Amino acid sequence: MLRGGLVRLGYELFRSGESEAVTACGAALELFQSSLLIHDDIMDRDTLRRGAKTLHALYADEAAAAGSRDPDHTGLALGVCAGDIGFFLGFRILADLRADGFPLVEVMSLFAREMSVVGAAQMLDVRSGSVRSATDEKDIITLYRYKTGRYTFSLPLSLGALLAGSTATLRRSLENLGERLGIIFQIKDDELGLFANAELTGKPAGSDLREGKYTVFFARLAPLLTSPEADRFYSVFGKAGLTPSDIEYVRDLVRKTGVAENVGATVRGLADDCRRDIDALAADPGLRSDRLTDLLEYSLTRSF
Amino acid sequence: MLRGGLVRLGYELFRSGESEAVTACGAALELFQSSLLIHDDIMDRDTLRRGAKTLHALYADEAAAAGSRDPDHTGLALGVCAGDIGFFLGFRILADLRADGFPLVEVMSLFAREMSVVGAAQMLDVRSGSVRSATDEKDIITLYRYKTGRYTFSLPLSLGALLAGSTATLRRSLENLGERLGIIFQIKDDELGLFANAELTGKPAGSDLREGKYTVFFARLAPLLTSPEADRFYSVFGKAGLTPSDIEYVRDLVRKTGVAENVGATVRGLADDCRRDIDALAADPGLRSDRLTDLLEYSLTRSF
Repeated sequence: MLRGGLVRLGYELFRSGESEAVTACGAALELFQSSLLIHDDIMDRDTLRRGAKTLHALYADEAAAAGSRDPDHTGLALGVCAGDIGFFLGFRILADLRADGFPLVEVMSLFAREMSVVGAAQMLDVRSGSVRSATDEKDIITLYRYKTGRYTFSLPLSLGALLAGSTATLRRSLENLGERLGIIFQIKDDELGLFANAELTGKPAGSDLREGKYTVFFARLAPLLTSPEADRFYSVFGKAGLTPSDIEYVRDLVRKTGVAENVGATVRGLADDCRRDIDALAADPGLRSDRLTDLLEYSLTRSF
Repeated sequence: MLRGGLVRLGYELFRSGESEAVTACGAALELFQSSLLIHDDIMDRDTLRRGAKTLHALYADEAAAAGSRDPDHTGLALGVCAGDIGFFLGFRILADLRADGFPLVEVMSLFAREMSVVGAAQMLDVRSGSVRSATDEKDIITLYRYKTGRYTFSLPLSLGALLAGSTATLRRSLENLGERLGIIFQIKDDELGLFANAELTGKPAGSDLREGKYTVFFARLAPLLTSPEADRFYSVFGKAGLTPSDIEYVRDLVRKTGVAENVGATVRGLADDCRRDIDALAADPGLRSDRLTDLLEYSLTRSF
């Protein structure tokens, strides 16, 4: 519940104490996120998430038991519906709150704008994932900026700040910081996906590799490969039955070509930018900038 | 644009003249409807709607041209995203309206409640459509009540009335009338699907028959069939390559068993109930009940 938590963090930058509006906005965002994940799992044909069956896979099991003619498609259809319902239930939480001074119009505008942007970013992601051509690093970072930056960081931080009565200018600065934090967070995600222990991350090791998904690591690696390395890499990239030694081979490539170190330097540069952003925000005496520094450190050092 | 038009009709029951809020709510509802249709076409694997390619089929063509590894699935994924975006754009229209006195909280509550109900009804529909067992008429009518009644009639009429400043009691009466009108409308749809000229309706003749979908006609027909009739009926029900003589055979069955006349009587009974509802509403001198009578007559007599 990172996103719901970040609504609270955005609020606590300016104010302390309980707020029904913060809880409601966090809950709505978590519902939207659940709906997006239900739909994403359908798009990615994933049957497992966090070690449990995905919703459309559960519906497919249920349809098979009920004698469906095509259980997989029935599961898919029911999953699409369930995701749609979640979007409306999220808006229902906001409409039903009716707390004094709750800025419903601004909250809805923010949600509607940022949620349609994340939908458009998802379309870019589906399109680039569907063709096996190397993706430009600039396009990858744009995707990270919108899918992880604006959606996972900027939106909740800005929502929380809005509920705390913050100015539009401060919120815009927070949104910019959120974009950078999201890019760091996503690169860290790619790194963990390639190098970390699957038991720790809860995802199968090498899943980006298995899906043939160009992360920043692979986009930088591809042009550096010798011809035999490229042959082996592309025989493994997008391969369903990936073996542990396939993964180990790619890990070694990423290390020995200097890509691992190189991406690390990019992340350090982004972190420096974030620290400058946070210092600028700290000029506002009412803002608890230490919470933002903690968030940056978490994004840099998390191990799952 | 039946639903957007019914928002205006709901408003014009009480007030005349232009209203920006009516246009905005009608547009939002039409956007929601477009998103639902995009998702429905994916669920039904329909590649044509109103004589043109469906959105996911267009995306699949585009993906094939771009060299996608699995164009059909890419088209499906992009269609799911596009539908999701439409939901958020619909809410954005409402949030961005900012007209004086616009009852945003009530409008959002109404949308969020009714749109989640139609999602749940769609799940029932998918579930019952996925198994080839006869469906109880009561369940079919429940589906008509929610998918067509509340969503297509009650919601827009109630929205329009809300924008005209109508009371909650009057709106509840309109919503009840909407449920009945929707059931009539849907039974008429089933009748046209079976008996009407495909060129007039824009849908292939016998599409419910081809999809093996239990309409009220088929639910009433099934228990009346002799054993040889049942054999022929079930060999045709849900058959992809339906021939004109298959359709003609089922039309004859529906007529000669008395089901056609029988369903007609049900519709006349529902129409009488609607007229009583409208008479009760006409007791309010500020309400233009003639518009409701027109709407009932249209639902009863439309030929496409």
